[in-house]
Amino acid sequence: MIIELITIGDEVMTGHTVDTNAAWIAEQLTDLGVDLAWRQSIGDNIDAMIAAMTHALKRSDLVLTTGGLGPTDDDLTKRALVKVFQRNLIFHEDVFDDIQARFAKRGIEMPPINHNQALLPQGATFFPNAFGSAVGICLTENNRTLVALPGVPREMKQIVTDSVIPYIQERTKDRAVRVIKLRTTGIVESQLHEIIQPEVTVEPGVKLAYLPNYRGVDLRVIAKGSTRDEATNKAMTLINQLERLVAPYAYGTDLDTLESVVGQLLADNDRTLALAESCTGGLVGERVTSVAGSSAYFLGGVVSYSNEAKSQLLGVRSDLIEQHGAVSQPVAEAMAAGARQRFGATYGLSLTGIAGPGGGSDQKPVGTVWIGIATPQATRAQVYHLGTDREIIRERATSAALELLRREILDIPS
Amino acid sequence: MIIELITIGDEVMTGHTVDTNAAWIAEQLTDLGVDLAWRQSIGDNIDAMIAAMTHALKRSDLVLTTGGLGPTDDDLTKRALVKVFQRNLIFHEDVFDDIQARFAKRGIEMPPINHNQALLPQGATFFPNAFGSAVGICLTENNRTLVALPGVPREMKQIVTDSVIPYIQERTKDRAVRVIKLRTTGIVESQLHEIIQPEVTVEPGVKLAYLPNYRGVDLRVIAKGSTRDEATNKAMTLINQLERLVAPYAYGTDLDTLESVVGQLLADNDRTLALAESCTGGLVGERVTSVAGSSAYFLGGVVSYSNEAKSQLLGVRSDLIEQHGAVSQPVAEAMAAGARQRFGATYGLSLTGIAGPGGGSDQKPVGTVWIGIATPQATRAQVYHLGTDREIIRERATSAALELLRREILDIPS
Repeated sequence: MIIELITIGDEVMTGHTVDTNAAWIAEQLTDLGVDLAWRQSIGDNIDAMIAAMTHALKRSDLVLTTGGLGPTDDDLTKRALVKVFQRNLIFHEDVFDDIQARFAKRGIEMPPINHNQALLPQGATFFPNAFGSAVGICLTENNRTLVALPGVPREMKQIVTDSVIPYIQERTKDRAVRVIKLRTTGIVESQLHEIIQPEVTVEPGVKLAYLPNYRGVDLRVIAKGSTRDEATNKAMTLINQLERLVAPYAYGTDLDTLESVVGQLLADNDRTLALAESCTGGLVGERVTSVAGSSAYFLGGVVSYSNEAKSQLLGVRSDLIEQHGAVSQPVAEAMAAGARQRFGATYGLSLTGIAGPGGGSDQKPVGTVWIGIATPQATRAQVYHLGTDREIIRERATSAALELLRREILDIPS
Repeated sequence: MIIELITIGDEVMTGHTVDTNAAWIAEQLTDLGVDLAWRQSIGDNIDAMIAAMTHALKRSDLVLTTGGLGPTDDDLTKRALVKVFQRNLIFHEDVFDDIQARFAKRGIEMPPINHNQALLPQGATFFPNAFGSAVGICLTENNRTLVALPGVPREMKQIVTDSVIPYIQERTKDRAVRVIKLRTTGIVESQLHEIIQPEVTVEPGVKLAYLPNYRGVDLRVIAKGSTRDEATNKAMTLINQLERLVAPYAYGTDLDTLESVVGQLLADNDRTLALAESCTGGLVGERVTSVAGSSAYFLGGVVSYSNEAKSQLLGVRSDLIEQHGAVSQPVAEAMAAGARQRFGATYGLSLTGIAGPGGGSDQKPVGTVWIGIATPQATRAQVYHLGTDREIIRERATSAALELLRREILDIPS
């Protein structure tokens, strides 16, 4: 199946928006074992849309588009579909009712303009949108299919996950491909490569890729076989081998995240967590609570951006701060112990560091972060050096803290 | 001048790399007042490259490509150029000397494979590369020009800045453009449209776009004129008109964010902020502290995920929670007042809500969020209904809270 993606919107063509939708869709297709053969991007221009769609339908079996499905005048995708597929727009009562219900639920009266969104090309099938009023529109002619998706990432992702992926899977059943990702953190790509390279021989039909990001490195295995079982066996053989080699750094597979894995460990062991964040400003709490059901094990946290807050809300002795500075082992330990005690949690986890751009010194340069952990047995802290960029330091510190907790619960040395 | 961009590389097609090169180039072109009319992306596949280039040269005056100019076997751009333009590769002594000198400077012996990079299509002109061995290659035939650039961002950017932009400027001397964004929050796209549509007539040469995301809607104006001043005047005329129409919702322009605007207001007025977050789990703190220098006005916060934490760390009376529930006006007010008092801040800002998927009821469905604010004068709270998706509810609640604070400081009614 030849697949093509067209992302639509002036914001992509003017460079005001980085096209993350395209990268996300490409990744989903790679995970399915199908290739994205072509990609195009065009502005909110009806002639360009018609030309791009027409060209795509000549060379590709399935064309996905994102964007241009909103209710306003600059949303032109439907008008292009009408021309390309030569269909009329029909008013769909059921779609209209859904849109109205969506607004009613939020207590907002539906603006008349949203009426437009229930006008859809004749003969189209619809992929429901759980988060917005623009449904996905699927049109087929001469064995070529076009699926038009909204450009809002959350809406596009839900429709791809719930409707487009099953649609593709149904049509590529005979392709036996298995994609498995092993997720690691706390180790860089080149170090992983040095561990893995001498030990591993990748079989024919199997591909291994290193995919780094600021939260860790994923090892992606794509295996092809003549049956699904054969592909799975090939993939699992390599994944098992990789897991043995990089064991302490591997925290999960595929959709696991560090916060979901840590959350599961806490829940399974009836343990609770409290946080004391300084340089991360709430980012660790945000990640922990992004997991549905986290209230079962997360009691809360203190964001102690000022020294007074560290003392008054966490009980950090002010002489410790005076003597060692706010970014120091004793303060990180006192913060972790204070959070654990104030919230009555099994574990207290703390972060104090210099995220920059200001505040660094020769002894404690920007990127220095102390992470503390308090358990029923002991309290300790560890220092990290996490780069020079504020955003990256905060991301890395968050992952380092969650990883420290994971290792503590599993009794893996840090 | 019709311009097209082709980004080349397997990493873009598998979704591992977000195509930031494309966004960067698009932005440079927008700032020059020229439009990027078409964009394509393809993998490291010679047939696809030939097809994409051939198609592009039929519809565009200037085609830019990035990627595939390295010395190794998977770098195929030059081989595609040879086919598309039907030129031989010629060994260029001067380019070769430059490459050798570059390696000598780094004290590295030139690997024989880099010899390839001095083989360039006959009749091409070259754009020098200050940071690497792959020069930009410029070929013209039948008034259509293709410029092949390396994919390494630093090298690509230098060649675009020093050679491609002057090349385009020389050929578009008579064009001028201005792009300005007005940023709004607390109002949906269709409501903005209803306010703006009847009042505003967009002049010829001016484009208005609505760019929604979960934090708000940006109104982007692109104006063209025969001089830069004319373009700026046209853009500012519309921006001023829009600003008047949507005043209470407009918090800034261009690179302003709600957190940077609120931060500036706090800093300018010597005021401080403390937070009490429940359903957002630290996300408001994360946004406030993403602004460098936020320690000047942000004292800290409490993430009170449990009822005990609300009582013990914020002093919320437990009978309030028992009587009204944790998601209620009295608890939101008590949390805001507690944060203000515990941290000794000018403002206390609180959020308590049901982010779902569990925890909703008929009276308090998922998406119900109470936001409280405590000031030196008074404490109050307001209820919001923010949808049904956990992540979106949290994003919207965060923006609503920052907006409530912005309006409080500026004395705009909420």
